[in-house]
Amino acid sequence: MNRILLILFSISCTHCFSQEKDGITWWSPINDSKHVIEGQAWPNGVAEYYSRLPERVANTLSKGVYNLGRQSAGLMIRFNTNSAKITVRYTVSRKGGFGMNHMPATGVSGVDLYTFDEHGKEIWCAAERKFSDTIIYDYKNLGATKTFREYRLYLPLYNQITHLEVGVESKSDFDFLPVREKKPIVVYGTSITQGACASRPGMAWTAQLGRALDLPLINLGFSGSGRLELPMIDLIAEIDAKVYILDCMPNLTQVTWENLGIENEGAFKERVLKAVNRLRSKKGSIPILLVEHAGYSDEYVSGSQKDRFQKVNKLQYQVYVQLKRQGVENLHYMKKEEIGLKMDDTVDGVHPTDLGMWHYAQAYVSKLQSLLK
Amino acid sequence: MNRILLILFSISCTHCFSQEKDGITWWSPINDSKHVIEGQAWPNGVAEYYSRLPERVANTLSKGVYNLGRQSAGLMIRFNTNSAKITVRYTVSRKGGFGMNHMPATGVSGVDLYTFDEHGKEIWCAAERKFSDTIIYDYKNLGATKTFREYRLYLPLYNQITHLEVGVESKSDFDFLPVREKKPIVVYGTSITQGACASRPGMAWTAQLGRALDLPLINLGFSGSGRLELPMIDLIAEIDAKVYILDCMPNLTQVTWENLGIENEGAFKERVLKAVNRLRSKKGSIPILLVEHAGYSDEYVSGSQKDRFQKVNKLQYQVYVQLKRQGVENLHYMKKEEIGLKMDDTVDGVHPTDLGMWHYAQAYVSKLQSLLK
Repeated sequence: MNRILLILFSISCTHCFSQEKDGITWWSPINDSKHVIEGQAWPNGVAEYYSRLPERVANTLSKGVYNLGRQSAGLMIRFNTNSAKITVRYTVSRKGGFGMNHMPATGVSGVDLYTFDEHGKEIWCAAERKFSDTIIYDYKNLGATKTFREYRLYLPLYNQITHLEVGVESKSDFDFLPVREKKPIVVYGTSITQGACASRPGMAWTAQLGRALDLPLINLGFSGSGRLELPMIDLIAEIDAKVYILDCMPNLTQVTWENLGIENEGAFKERVLKAVNRLRSKKGSIPILLVEHAGYSDEYVSGSQKDRFQKVNKLQYQVYVQLKRQGVENLHYMKKEEIGLKMDDTVDGVHPTDLGMWHYAQAYVSKLQSLLK
Repeated sequence: MNRILLILFSISCTHCFSQEKDGITWWSPINDSKHVIEGQAWPNGVAEYYSRLPERVANTLSKGVYNLGRQSAGLMIRFNTNSAKITVRYTVSRKGGFGMNHMPATGVSGVDLYTFDEHGKEIWCAAERKFSDTIIYDYKNLGATKTFREYRLYLPLYNQITHLEVGVESKSDFDFLPVREKKPIVVYGTSITQGACASRPGMAWTAQLGRALDLPLINLGFSGSGRLELPMIDLIAEIDAKVYILDCMPNLTQVTWENLGIENEGAFKERVLKAVNRLRSKKGSIPILLVEHAGYSDEYVSGSQKDRFQKVNKLQYQVYVQLKRQGVENLHYMKKEEIGLKMDDTVDGVHPTDLGMWHYAQAYVSKLQSLLK
């Protein structure tokens, strides 16, 4: 669906920009003439309104990655309203499984709302929620306010939104806010980057980081598929970023090598090297941050698990050192120890819970604050 | 089912104490002559083997509380084995909904395994898991060990186990360990005590506390029903405890008062007073810890939510002060500020994620360490 056509449609049909019923006025981002979906790098090129990847790469990237790109991880909608009640109603493509067995529906298919106090301090909002054909999040306790207040609505981490509306009291004012013009943080990564297994979208480490630094963030995390693929690097290089984060080691341990045609350690290092060089050659001096595998939380009992992440971390670090020696500037590195993931930080040994996501976010905030200053 | 009959049955039928097939020997706690279910205060009085409450109170307590008592929250099985692989297979009563929309199946219906290194440091174990008619947790990466190693298996927080077996390599040794004889920590509380919304049973704050202090713990948390009821207080008083924790304020905010026949603030205070006095009169000087409502995580945006928890905390604290003035000894109090629950610590404004559970546990560990020294 082409955004230009959508805008023309919305101009020719202003009565459907919002709809009032039972004292609630419903607002739909799809009918807004502005680009209001933050975290979306190719708004004019998506096949579906809430996709993360442009339609033109449907055949360039693997089908798996492209389909994961339909899931709304990292997408966020900002709006101003003075309504004391907000209802979000939406439909998703996968209705059969709103959750996963290690991640609740609130994280997989739920939305998450934050606002800000008069000092800019973030405030989380609680909802009553209902998961059915139409998912409903009802925010009833927002307090009466006579002034506008900015809200940020984070979209589902592991499902695809097909339709979404925001309802507010008809007597109140409402405005979707345009995507911020600041350069975004761009993250290319794995399921952990996509958001598994946060309890709600706002607790994905990327969302926490975006709020902490008050910067837009493009989440290019793809479950099982963060593999430093050059077509994805080329795509990323199209974005004028504040910083590029490459956090792919959890999907590049040796068990994946055969399928990816990585024959040996040398070939693995070559893959990392090519990814960094390609990005650097296309995007001048924009900072690139390479991130290590944070470890498995059963590493204390399983020697084999420990070997798996230690190996790729060692090899990636060697590439980093080599590139630094070659004079590549503005290349940065975050070690496992800096991430500081603890034994009890994951639900399954791999995917962080909110506790692990919080540790991840702390590490990234600290790293980026020093890197971007 | 009576434990004596079970023991007689297992003595007359030693061949079913364990069963070997395909190189795995299956061990069933129900066939062990020892009491091996830790966290169970009335092992000889339960109607179902994995219940928390004795059958005789089925009509004394509300049906809701008694049914929640069938759920295995806080139950834990200890065993020694030198097997490098462990499989846990079990069935639960509610197969239709292994999870809840804000709590994954791994927490609601899953098990959770910890072991210890040679210095007694706890080590978490990762499993492959399958939720179906029989739930299977497969622990494959435990490392080869020639010595015995102690394991602790935490049972589901929000489901009822109907049958459970532990499978180990047939060549290995295996022994269920008897319930530890140390006096337990006894907690009477709400859904938060029962374990909502931990990602896995070992992350419930009670489980974290039990490990940190290396003490048995009796979890008498009942979702929506931690209401300082005298029949429950009488029951608790039967347990020779190390300390009694009364953490019921989240289920006693004013919205519950009408249903409970609490007419006003005075009646509310009377309820707290009676509970403490009853427990104190029956159990001499065993420490009692009263705990405040930790707050709602949308308190920053919702004035009404803030009022709800502030009111009961204020009233409970007045009772505490009154009792202290009257000379009641070994009565302790933990304030909201000591719990220190943060805005992003819950999934829904009420129930802690692993992040919130970790904050809860930290507070309790610190409080009990000072209280019990």
